Amino acid sequence: MASNTFGEVLRMTTFGESHGPAIGVVVDGVPAGLELDEALIQRDLDRRRPGQSSLTTARRESDTVEILSGVFQGQTTGHPVAMLIRNSDAVSTAYDDVKDLFRPGHADRTWLDKYGIRDHRGSGRASGRETACRVAAGALARSIIARAGMRVMAGAVQIGGVRASTFDPQAVWASNARSADPAAAPAMEAAILEAAARKDSIGGIVECHAEGVLAGLGAPMYRKLDAMLAAAIFGLGAVKGLEFGAGFAAAGMRGSEHNDGMTPDGYLTNNAGGVVGGVSTGQTIVFRAAIKPTPSIASPQTSIDTSGNPVTCIVEGRHDPCIIPRIVPVIEAMTAFVLADMLLLARGDRISPKKEFL
Amino acid sequence: MASNTFGEVLRMTTFGESHGPAIGVVVDGVPAGLELDEALIQRDLDRRRPGQSSLTTARRESDTVEILSGVFQGQTTGHPVAMLIRNSDAVSTAYDDVKDLFRPGHADRTWLDKYGIRDHRGSGRASGRETACRVAAGALARSIIARAGMRVMAGAVQIGGVRASTFDPQAVWASNARSADPAAAPAMEAAILEAAARKDSIGGIVECHAEGVLAGLGAPMYRKLDAMLAAAIFGLGAVKGLEFGAGFAAAGMRGSEHNDGMTPDGYLTNNAGGVVGGVSTGQTIVFRAAIKPTPSIASPQTSIDTSGNPVTCIVEGRHDPCIIPRIVPVIEAMTAFVLADMLLLARGDRISPKKEFL
Amino acid sequence: MASNTFGEVLRMTTFGESHGPAIGVVVDGVPAGLELDEALIQRDLDRRRPGQSSLTTARRESDTVEILSGVFQGQTTGHPVAMLIRNSDAVSTAYDDVKDLFRPGHADRTWLDKYGIRDHRGSGRASGRETACRVAAGALARSIIARAGMRVMAGAVQIGGVRASTFDPQAVWASNARSADPAAAPAMEAAILEAAARKDSIGGIVECHAEGVLAGLGAPMYRKLDAMLAAAIFGLGAVKGLEFGAGFAAAGMRGSEHNDGMTPDGYLTNNAGGVVGGVSTGQTIVFRAAIKPTPSIASPQTSIDTSGNPVTCIVEGRHDPCIIPRIVPVIEAMTAFVLADMLLLARGDRISPKKEFL
Amino acid sequence: MASNTFGEVLRMTTFGESHGPAIGVVVDGVPAGLELDEALIQRDLDRRRPGQSSLTTARRESDTVEILSGVFQGQTTGHPVAMLIRNSDAVSTAYDDVKDLFRPGHADRTWLDKYGIRDHRGSGRASGRETACRVAAGALARSIIARAGMRVMAGAVQIGGVRASTFDPQAVWASNARSADPAAAPAMEAAILEAAARKDSIGGIVECHAEGVLAGLGAPMYRKLDAMLAAAIFGLGAVKGLEFGAGFAAAGMRGSEHNDGMTPDGYLTNNAGGVVGGVSTGQTIVFRAAIKPTPSIASPQTSIDTSGNPVTCIVEGRHDPCIIPRIVPVIEAMTAFVLADMLLLARGDRISPKKEFL
Repeated sequence: MASNTFGEVLRMTTFGESHGPAIGVVVDGVPAGLELDEALIQRDLDRRRPGQSSLTTARRESDTVEILSGVFQGQTTGHPVAMLIRNSDAVSTAYDDVKDLFRPGHADRTWLDKYGIRDHRGSGRASGRETACRVAAGALARSIIARAGMRVMAGAVQIGGVRASTFDPQAVWASNARSADPAAAPAMEAAILEAAARKDSIGGIVECHAEGVLAGLGAPMYRKLDAMLAAAIFGLGAVKGLEFGAGFAAAGMRGSEHNDGMTPDGYLTNNAGGVVGGVSTGQTIVFRAAIKPTPSIASPQTSIDTSGNPVTCIVEGRHDPCIIPRIVPVIEAMTAFVLADMLLLARGDRISPKKEFL
Repeated sequence: MASNTFGEVLRMTTFGESHGPAIGVVVDGVPAGLELDEALIQRDLDRRRPGQSSLTTARRESDTVEILSGVFQGQTTGHPVAMLIRNSDAVSTAYDDVKDLFRPGHADRTWLDKYGIRDHRGSGRASGRETACRVAAGALARSIIARAGMRVMAGAVQIGGVRASTFDPQAVWASNARSADPAAAPAMEAAILEAAARKDSIGGIVECHAEGVLAGLGAPMYRKLDAMLAAAIFGLGAVKGLEFGAGFAAAGMRGSEHNDGMTPDGYLTNNAGGVVGGVSTGQTIVFRAAIKPTPSIASPQTSIDTSGNPVTCIVEGRHDPCIIPRIVPVIEAMTAFVLADMLLLARGDRISPKKEFL
Repeated sequence: MASNTFGEVLRMTTFGESHGPAIGVVVDGVPAGLELDEALIQRDLDRRRPGQSSLTTARRESDTVEILSGVFQGQTTGHPVAMLIRNSDAVSTAYDDVKDLFRPGHADRTWLDKYGIRDHRGSGRASGRETACRVAAGALARSIIARAGMRVMAGAVQIGGVRASTFDPQAVWASNARSADPAAAPAMEAAILEAAARKDSIGGIVECHAEGVLAGLGAPMYRKLDAMLAAAIFGLGAVKGLEFGAGFAAAGMRGSEHNDGMTPDGYLTNNAGGVVGGVSTGQTIVFRAAIKPTPSIASPQTSIDTSGNPVTCIVEGRHDPCIIPRIVPVIEAMTAFVLADMLLLARGDRISPKKEFL
Repeated sequence: MASNTFGEVLRMTTFGESHGPAIGVVVDGVPAGLELDEALIQRDLDRRRPGQSSLTTARRESDTVEILSGVFQGQTTGHPVAMLIRNSDAVSTAYDDVKDLFRPGHADRTWLDKYGIRDHRGSGRASGRETACRVAAGALARSIIARAGMRVMAGAVQIGGVRASTFDPQAVWASNARSADPAAAPAMEAAILEAAARKDSIGGIVECHAEGVLAGLGAPMYRKLDAMLAAAIFGLGAVKGLEFGAGFAAAGMRGSEHNDGMTPDGYLTNNAGGVVGGVSTGQTIVFRAAIKPTPSIASPQTSIDTSGNPVTCIVEGRHDPCIIPRIVPVIEAMTAFVLADMLLLARGDRISPKKEFL
């Protein structure tokens, strides 16, 4: 079953394995006449690529994007935009030790159960490397939503036991930990390094804000804005939880507290996180995603081999002790992609559109 | 844009408004030769319908389902199964007071922003009444997954400030609050009644377990089992948070804690909640959904009318002070539907299937 | 696999069997704010329904449509429009003779091969009765395209051996044979009656014109306007051939003859039939569909029963000796539906749309 | 709107322009465990590529395919198979003369109407060059259907005024004209050369046979086998007509003639062309496609420029005087693709499948 395509009107189809010749993405449904900002695409890829700091894996990939189609004289043509990223620093032999065993927390076993075949080299298609394609597609989506005045910013609000006290999107890229709180950044970075030193890993929470969102985006019943964002965010293997606005805290609130009152000047609060009834309110969209600790750790773990025999598994190789610094741009990308998709989709809402979004 | 269809291989399309003549659902992609259990469909509808206890809205709907197609001599034919539920106790005049104002927490404003037209009678299509269709489709899905030995059970683990200490699916239907913990049930019920007495409302948390799940369900990259469940669950307007397994707690765990070790006898833990890399592990799928307090409350709230003038909004009428008792069967239904969809979809995984699922 | 939905942005999902309680259609993707013309829907259903003249089956169905959803105060709401048609004159016992044998030219055998189960009563879902749903959806689509100045008209240009010399859409509905040529109408009607008298059946050719079509409709590569029309028209079981513009005659033409020259005043010819490169030119769309003779005939035919034993098959019952008079409105409906779908889809073509279509 | 994807379960997404850096295709939904026959893919590409004989364009492209993903140790993995073909002999300056005028019979004008932007270099995405991607995807599909014993063979049965008297698939590839009749091949080739000498072009008819087709393929209502084939074949810009089995001749036949009688030994005739009720009968699928003459001719034609002024258009450059020799492998490819898609889709037909197709 074809399952490598995401989106309704704007659709990305990704392909490629961690240690194959290349990975890539085809973005279809891009309206004609959009100025394509290649530098923005490369910037976002650079923010995600490995080897940026001491906090991330030592694998070195330039992640240079080649745009193969869909652009003429700097403008999109309405035809698919294909983007290719060659793999360069793939050391497949580093994975020989794990090819016959199951690494805890990895997709090794579930995907073998499913497909009956496993490309063990760098986890094959299960590798987080595929998310570079999402970042490229998301950067293109940013150009679309920017025309409607929307922008997306994410940052870490928790890494291991360290929590942010503020959400300052300007601070995020100045911190190797991608902390949304500059004050908490050093402690977050220290927590990552400490986990790495213990041959262990940690997780955290990423918060994402989408500002300037037009009211009326999202399509009931089954393409609700929050449901589509949820599909996008849970589409990242490391995500184990997601909440909008007040989120889990809403479970303990009264209706009179949780309901966002309205005045002629706007909403009084934003407990909804910018989405009510699956449709954007026009307030900032706010969500938080819980990220699990990286499964690849160099400490001994109880596992089995592919024949079912017990083994001790030690995952050597070049792994991120915390995926947060590199997942932040991916979460931004997928959020921008969903918003662009919903923006284009909203063009069909009514006979006499209130306004042209683009 | 068509957005009232959910599912990939098994697809449900719903229609209908709260105060129109009827609501209904067309389920397509049902394999031929399935014994259709009409009594199971009606049982699940009965569990969701209003007016079952003092904890729920006083609206009385028998929610009797009429199966219009797709069944011949008790078996499915491979053609769409259409199910119709007539509306009977729709008192539209009760909504005259709110037709020109926006009720806080409701989709009134966002949907009007979107469509430029609003069927105010009982919230029109935005009403939770539409979920009866999901329950009917989910009951059909239960028959499919039951053939593969899978079953789904949900229950309340928090209502207002009252939390469950156990998850006992056998206890759920004996409690009007649908509590998963029989010991907590009386306090949960009291909390709902107390909120109603204050003309207020409360929310809570529903936990859902899927047992007997075959390993290998879910389709990377973008039809991951957890992503599809997330789309289904966030497709319910009242849901503001979702977590699988350890969920948000995973953010504070180390990899060595969170990874589920494997032995020849099975997994040692289930922090993943039964899904790794978007594919089922074969363990019980466990997730929790945070449910917001019902937005309709009879206390005065700050709001505006459709012209933007300030108003005090008091929502009279027959509303659930807590939606949990009635959302439990809906969450079960959507979970069963996703599992059935993924089960049918998994038929195409490989050239030489390990086994026939059905 | 779900296969009962047609369309990309505007989508119809049909359900129901010939002798079940009802048939119906859910149309999703209808923009909000459209004035729904119920009388037009009923008019088109009346044009298709059985028992209109001596040329058609004696089955009597009023085919009264009940609109269940998606309309509020006469306008569409952006939510699904569900339409229900009850079956009334279903005489299932008339089919007892054929339940264990395969009627030549019918889907009896192929669908049993496929599904392993067969609703023999009036051919079940394989019955042409399902096309009433397409007519209802098509009538709704007519209201959409009418706003952009487009209209669709079809008529018979050949019935049996009788061919039309003109295409006069005004004449079509005055003729029981739905002849596009009033001069040929009597001979066409006589041909049908003569076939019926011989306990045989005949086919013919239907031509369809879409006028006022905006240039720029149809979506390369794989949603080309002609390809979508072809999927729609070959979606009718009786269609065995289809050609646009010069059609099969183009095979024998030179490029210098076939190319439609352009002048400042417009195209010089319309050999393309209004579609070039999968996109509408703005000229009239012209296509012809070859319709096979009705398979149900009361003459003896060589066949087998479901166990594979030879039988002589005589199809008694109430059948159309020629399906042309009743397929004309269905072809119009599907054409209108495709045009409406492509019209809505074209809203997303570019960043700065040339014009608002609706 | 995303429209560059074809297929339901097996899906191809193509990208690329005639004079961009590359074209390519991503095939998703390929079951894991299929032996990928790369040589077959290259063979089919070689059969389509330009410059093979004096009958085709002088553009020289090696059309060497690079497989980027989805294969591990010679077997498919269940993940997308991406295939890339670099453009090498693109002489864009040859198109400078036509960049501001509309070539009759080309998509120049309709696509500019649609997108508001036009990549004039070699027709951009509208070029037939994109069909190389379909051939690559179709070759992969051939490997799938071959496992179920199915194969597809096409050939020319008419070129200009020359008609074949037989359909001999073995003879097709021995003839530069791809004639299905070896006796007619010389005359067909002469007709092409004669048209070229006149600075004109000719069309023809391609017939296609699919043998060994399993009964039961195709999905009513709206994914009928013939409807899906029609969408695939009319998805080629040069196709103006299509008929199955008796085709247009069926319009003049009686039911007693057209119905294919059945005996215990099989069907007596194949007027249906192997499809009844949208589902394969198990007989050979037979269809014919009418191909228009190549629009690019070096004779003067009446046209307008992009400002609407009259011009005389002479299309210089390297063009095929007849597209038939190069469209034959494309028609085979799309037919194989549709059959593979329907084969995989049929896995979901019933609860207890009669047999495993793969």
